[in-house]
Amino acid sequence: GWARAVRGLLLDVSGVLYDSGADGGIPIAGSAEAVRRIKASGLKLQLCTNETQATRENFVRKLRAMGFDVSVAEVTAPAPAACRLMKERGLRPHLLVHDDLVPEFAEIDKTNPNCVVLGDAAENFTYANLNEAFRLLIEMEKPVLISLGKGRYYKETDGLKLDVGAYMKALEYACDVQAEVVGKPAKRFFESALAELGVPPEQAIMIGDDIENDVGGAQRCGMRALQVRTGKYR
Amino acid sequence: GWARAVRGLLLDVSGVLYDSGADGGIPIAGSAEAVRRIKASGLKLQLCTNETQATRENFVRKLRAMGFDVSVAEVTAPAPAACRLMKERGLRPHLLVHDDLVPEFAEIDKTNPNCVVLGDAAENFTYANLNEAFRLLIEMEKPVLISLGKGRYYKETDGLKLDVGAYMKALEYACDVQAEVVGKPAKRFFESALAELGVPPEQAIMIGDDIENDVGGAQRCGMRALQVRTGKYR
Repeated sequence: GWARAVRGLLLDVSGVLYDSGADGGIPIAGSAEAVRRIKASGLKLQLCTNETQATRENFVRKLRAMGFDVSVAEVTAPAPAACRLMKERGLRPHLLVHDDLVPEFAEIDKTNPNCVVLGDAAENFTYANLNEAFRLLIEMEKPVLISLGKGRYYKETDGLKLDVGAYMKALEYACDVQAEVVGKPAKRFFESALAELGVPPEQAIMIGDDIENDVGGAQRCGMRALQVRTGKYR
Repeated sequence: GWARAVRGLLLDVSGVLYDSGADGGIPIAGSAEAVRRIKASGLKLQLCTNETQATRENFVRKLRAMGFDVSVAEVTAPAPAACRLMKERGLRPHLLVHDDLVPEFAEIDKTNPNCVVLGDAAENFTYANLNEAFRLLIEMEKPVLISLGKGRYYKETDGLKLDVGAYMKALEYACDVQAEVVGKPAKRFFESALAELGVPPEQAIMIGDDIENDVGGAQRCGMRALQVRTGKYR
């Protein structure tokens, strides 16, 4: 019954289509073919990712080089969503993010910061950078911490890595603030992915490897969701 | 009334006697004289510190060089308390601590770790070291995280720094575990400081700059406590 009504799929990427890594990552067996078959079947497809280690352009370039038939318009990612939110609210960020993500914030005024934006900064999660973000935040009259996702960890080709959520918790605790999460599992983020897909929640399925951020988040938006047994699945 | 019954003082050190820093730190005005007067008055004195950037020996050497008349026996610190706990329970640590603290764990078996001990590792809080501690912890059958304190932040001569509690929260969240805190504000830690002082809680006063870890923790042990307006006081 319901399966015949499905018109679109939201796909998580890391751990579903490929395992990321410093080497660029490796595709998961069968996943490029799966994307091809989904598209050939007439189903709509949108990548719904918390990827914050690259601009969407570079992310898509990497996926295409691995054999995935995807375009920038098919990617919903946290950085552009954070930019929309900051523009709406007159927020000027201090960025603690991966170097390769910085161009996504090119049009945002970053002088005299009144918020901190935290992404999966990877090697930029240094003691010095964490102290700097902490000091700026605690000295703000009204500290605003925007976190691009709240994942606990993810799997790279050389093992499990702490995700942005762990560092978010560190800053939340130190500054006694609650972060605003942009990206999965935020309802607003799934809603914007569905809007880009052009499909209502009851006609969409979210597919991911994270039981909370992919599956739980999607279900709270009225979607069905599937957990794959690749990526961080244990 | 009660003030005349006071026989001993527990003193926090960083932010009370001196402001720590990469330069070794600087004494707070009047504090060396205060220690002298406390001792001359006949009051017993014990330093009750969450210091985990040095062995007690080196810590005392530094304090003496700054003019404080204190001895190793007058220092209650988390690392020795953690060693006692690990011996009791057959725990073998992976250490994520400051290089200068490592000698405190010389007599503990560290092969094939079945717990992670987290101290104020400062420059050792690297992305690689945090990932390593996280991976060991999440792969343990029964993860045990021992945290040497749970402070949010402290003040060094060049500004505020994230304390061990922030990193504790990051690992707690990533691994879905609750850390066991050794050091202030743990009741057992204050009790061992009081035992070393040889004074019951109702005849002791705790003096510190941290409203939670010094003042709150001591009060929960039945002591009176004073908050100084130096150090991290804001």
